[in-house]
Amino acid sequence: MKLPSGKHNDITDVPGVRVGHVTLYEKLNDVDTVCTGVTAILPHGGNLFTNKIPAASHIINGFGKTTGLIQVDELGFLESPIMLTNTFSVGTVLQGTLSYMLDKNPAIGDTASSLNIVVGECNDSYLNSMRLQAVKPEHAIQAIENASNEPIKQGAVGAGKGMICYGYKGGIGSASRVILDEDGDYTVGVLVLSNFGKREQALFADWSSVKQKTPDGSIMIIIGTDAPLYDRQLKRLAKRATAGLARTGSVIANGSGDIAIAFSNANLEQHTQDCKFDSFTYVRDAHPLMEKLFQAVVESTEDAIIHSLKYAKATKGRKGRIVEKAPL
Amino acid sequence: MKLPSGKHNDITDVPGVRVGHVTLYEKLNDVDTVCTGVTAILPHGGNLFTNKIPAASHIINGFGKTTGLIQVDELGFLESPIMLTNTFSVGTVLQGTLSYMLDKNPAIGDTASSLNIVVGECNDSYLNSMRLQAVKPEHAIQAIENASNEPIKQGAVGAGKGMICYGYKGGIGSASRVILDEDGDYTVGVLVLSNFGKREQALFADWSSVKQKTPDGSIMIIIGTDAPLYDRQLKRLAKRATAGLARTGSVIANGSGDIAIAFSNANLEQHTQDCKFDSFTYVRDAHPLMEKLFQAVVESTEDAIIHSLKYAKATKGRKGRIVEKAPL
Amino acid sequence: MKLPSGKHNDITDVPGVRVGHVTLYEKLNDVDTVCTGVTAILPHGGNLFTNKIPAASHIINGFGKTTGLIQVDELGFLESPIMLTNTFSVGTVLQGTLSYMLDKNPAIGDTASSLNIVVGECNDSYLNSMRLQAVKPEHAIQAIENASNEPIKQGAVGAGKGMICYGYKGGIGSASRVILDEDGDYTVGVLVLSNFGKREQALFADWSSVKQKTPDGSIMIIIGTDAPLYDRQLKRLAKRATAGLARTGSVIANGSGDIAIAFSNANLEQHTQDCKFDSFTYVRDAHPLMEKLFQAVVESTEDAIIHSLKYAKATKGRKGRIVEKAPL
Amino acid sequence: MKLPSGKHNDITDVPGVRVGHVTLYEKLNDVDTVCTGVTAILPHGGNLFTNKIPAASHIINGFGKTTGLIQVDELGFLESPIMLTNTFSVGTVLQGTLSYMLDKNPAIGDTASSLNIVVGECNDSYLNSMRLQAVKPEHAIQAIENASNEPIKQGAVGAGKGMICYGYKGGIGSASRVILDEDGDYTVGVLVLSNFGKREQALFADWSSVKQKTPDGSIMIIIGTDAPLYDRQLKRLAKRATAGLARTGSVIANGSGDIAIAFSNANLEQHTQDCKFDSFTYVRDAHPLMEKLFQAVVESTEDAIIHSLKYAKATKGRKGRIVEKAPL
Repeated sequence: MKLPSGKHNDITDVPGVRVGHVTLYEKLNDVDTVCTGVTAILPHGGNLFTNKIPAASHIINGFGKTTGLIQVDELGFLESPIMLTNTFSVGTVLQGTLSYMLDKNPAIGDTASSLNIVVGECNDSYLNSMRLQAVKPEHAIQAIENASNEPIKQGAVGAGKGMICYGYKGGIGSASRVILDEDGDYTVGVLVLSNFGKREQALFADWSSVKQKTPDGSIMIIIGTDAPLYDRQLKRLAKRATAGLARTGSVIANGSGDIAIAFSNANLEQHTQDCKFDSFTYVRDAHPLMEKLFQAVVESTEDAIIHSLKYAKATKGRKGRIVEKAPL
Repeated sequence: MKLPSGKHNDITDVPGVRVGHVTLYEKLNDVDTVCTGVTAILPHGGNLFTNKIPAASHIINGFGKTTGLIQVDELGFLESPIMLTNTFSVGTVLQGTLSYMLDKNPAIGDTASSLNIVVGECNDSYLNSMRLQAVKPEHAIQAIENASNEPIKQGAVGAGKGMICYGYKGGIGSASRVILDEDGDYTVGVLVLSNFGKREQALFADWSSVKQKTPDGSIMIIIGTDAPLYDRQLKRLAKRATAGLARTGSVIANGSGDIAIAFSNANLEQHTQDCKFDSFTYVRDAHPLMEKLFQAVVESTEDAIIHSLKYAKATKGRKGRIVEKAPL
Repeated sequence: MKLPSGKHNDITDVPGVRVGHVTLYEKLNDVDTVCTGVTAILPHGGNLFTNKIPAASHIINGFGKTTGLIQVDELGFLESPIMLTNTFSVGTVLQGTLSYMLDKNPAIGDTASSLNIVVGECNDSYLNSMRLQAVKPEHAIQAIENASNEPIKQGAVGAGKGMICYGYKGGIGSASRVILDEDGDYTVGVLVLSNFGKREQALFADWSSVKQKTPDGSIMIIIGTDAPLYDRQLKRLAKRATAGLARTGSVIANGSGDIAIAFSNANLEQHTQDCKFDSFTYVRDAHPLMEKLFQAVVESTEDAIIHSLKYAKATKGRKGRIVEKAPL
Repeated sequence: MKLPSGKHNDITDVPGVRVGHVTLYEKLNDVDTVCTGVTAILPHGGNLFTNKIPAASHIINGFGKTTGLIQVDELGFLESPIMLTNTFSVGTVLQGTLSYMLDKNPAIGDTASSLNIVVGECNDSYLNSMRLQAVKPEHAIQAIENASNEPIKQGAVGAGKGMICYGYKGGIGSASRVILDEDGDYTVGVLVLSNFGKREQALFADWSSVKQKTPDGSIMIIIGTDAPLYDRQLKRLAKRATAGLARTGSVIANGSGDIAIAFSNANLEQHTQDCKFDSFTYVRDAHPLMEKLFQAVVESTEDAIIHSLKYAKATKGRKGRIVEKAPL
């Protein structure tokens, strides 16, 4: 009954989408270890400011610090990469991404308007000495420059380096689904930064006998598609991420900042276009294709979370703590 | 790992909560059958207008016609029973419930302010000749008057008479969970009106070989608790119903009006109180009890959906259609 | 600096928009008077179910009982007339409108899906014996059938018969603004049902010396335009109604259910269309035309409120109470 | 009819509230001028992390980049100062404020959870060479350390140094209102960062003959009170800021990021409290005091905007541009 996966079963199966990581890992002394990073998701390979991307978000649980969603919700599009990092690096990643975008777009903040940047985060302070603020603006720039449409590295990499999921090592996970359609196929891809859950909550494995006390975490869920959808519809896709998350066992804990962001790169909006009108084509809500897109989001989200565990190696971090690899 | 159920494993395990049904079933001719009803949930046994109940809602998917939620969201409380019926009977049930409340409260609309009534619905037109509008205002009154705190009837009863869930007969289902706490136990109860899903989507049974084409439906999820919570927190509980729904297999279809409403009857707000201030006690969001309450909502919702199938008998309706009992 | 008004300075200046009233007025005895009615706004002259209208709403203050907005927000369109009446007649008007729509569309609730109906309300119980529920379903049908694109009757008419605004007789008011554009003109029209405010709060007249104690009320603000806009943008228009309301002096009182609904009849969505895709053309948010549309909403709302006072005659109602005509 | 102002008619009239500025102004060359700053609003004089403050926000128009509101909306409180700056300095101010808070709270990010910081912004690129990112993290720290409960400096100061309002020099403005109550007085204070509007739109002065082309801007509106209110009620206060803004003439332009944040410092929530429950006392929504609080927000917002113009001196900035003092 499940939909087929894309070629690499990751978000880069969505044509145009690119992902880049920067991973920081260094033991500083007996107490402190830098064990964190930055991940950049680029909805397409062109200039993201001049070719804006229809997008929307859904706050599953708002114990999180993601920036930029107010404007995405008002105007219905993204105009920058989506950046992921640890909670205390949102400021520097914002700054670095801004510098990158200013460099590529001399008009921003001069003759053009300002710029809205989306930075999502999870708290990796169990393994990472987060108070040290090791992520610098240049790491954000580097993550963007590293972005490619090759199959992505998953697990303890990029922003996922220090994350923990269901009591085991988590981090970056990704998956995709393809809807075979007579008019051409459509792909939905999901990338997660997983950092939530207790062992005994997992529904996809029986880990109830091996309790480990880890703190409440969060999950960032990024959904991309090449199906033509507009912002209201993308919000509907973002809401379905909750179902994928729930299928793995989450009860959406108090301290878990669970946020989904969905974009479509099928219809871009030009920043500099002079004309008064724009137009777009979109899948009708009532057409069965829409339910397939919903299903693709649910399945890809579930799969991406499991991938984040499957591909993550045991990692040693702050205070000598070790988070084991999940027995998957 | 699951939380224990309450005594009857239904929403009336929450002290004070009452439920009443009116079921309408009559074959009129070869085409038309009345196969529908009304269900009333009373958060407590007193006067609901003069003793208002903290409440909140969450729209999982807004393809639905529930009334009254705008005011619940603004003011943070309920002041009437929660009524459930079919889509085309929202008007008459609203009218009947109004008449009941006016009768009990001579001041409403005279010296006191107006009244806000919550009526939820699902579309039972596969089995019920919904266009005939068989539900009359007096059926709403009768459902309220039938309300008791006895273990409730589930399945093809009340508003659930004509509903279909995962391609089998669904309708009213309920479940509860108890959190054993040193300061006294807390109960969470859920009542659902289930009317959604395709056979091949069910995750709790393998029904993929027996497809049946049934229309998109909806689910109403009513959550009650005696844990002291205020409206913002009750919205958090309502959001967790999505996880219970997702665990059963729903991808939250386009045409499914999935709406959750949560109330707590621990702190009531007096309508006629003269004083300027009110105060309440509430569970702190960061306390582990809150996550238990979230878990209780997820488990009770999942369980209630399965109960709605388990207790529903095969039902014959409009155009001679038969919806089978689920093999559970 | 103000934008020019349309030909009649009312909402019917928007091509296609029709308005119909039914007014009920009868003194029953020394205490009770029926002093109320129904107003129907039709976004276009065709079948509203098969030709749906992009729409959105904004809850300025949610102490109100409007139905149907959950689905409008989810799907982004209207599929029925917008009906206005008193608070206790929402149920019967819902029922009457449903009957009207079922009659015109035999497929609804049979082979087609269900139907979403928007009914807004204000509380006219100061003048109207609202507890008597004098409005019947047939009055809703009649209001729809009375709808025409002629200049509309304003003041103490239709749903406005018993309403009070700034301590004087209010009710139905309307206004319009035209944006002269090289590609063709665009019209924005607003219709209000005014029932709010205290004399001393008015900013457009000095009524501070003549206090009159009237209850908190509400305002329904319906905005129509022929400019091509989609649901996200229409929500932006609806939000600007707050500014028009505020300019007249409202502080948006606790008990005032202030709700704005905006629609555009430039791009209709077919219900029965078989194809997978739809497309539309819309005004770009960043184009100066958008700010003109915002300005048109603000000015039309302000003007419509003042018209609701200007055209309303002194009215005698329940318990012999008289509400005077505003000295405008 | 207006409510009386507090002693200094600014937000520091609310007992406990403190405000601090850092102003940066330097002509670098013929093109570039640094003309910007940072403003910090502290809801009380204690540790803001360990004594959290009930708060809520309202997005009047979301063309803005304010951080931290997702968590404020979820949990209902603030746990850091509210920081204001220019659009491109959100990252560095976030970083600086984080460093300040980490320094005061060694447990954050170690044994305690993470930290949520609210940074609001307006675009001052007409006068300020915003691309140069002149604001450094230490400026944020300095603004917090400068905070006092003395009457605040208004106009072209702090974050307001480079802002423009109604085509004249704007920036920081503040006002307050006192509600004289038999149980003790309540104060509402508002601080704005004004950067919006065209001359011909002003309703409080006739500036229509002297057009000046300035870009769309934004306004940040911070509302503080010592009346006991909880988060849902504070959202209601935040919504009323729209009315104050509208009274000055704004039509809430497309590119204007207009955001209101309201807090009450009457009931603080302890971070480290071990107990399971908390309780608070609040003004009842239906009590007349609530409408007075709404009125106080409307009047203070209107007044604060006018003060931002009245106290701002003509300022020369980027590219030799001069923005004149408003003739008030």
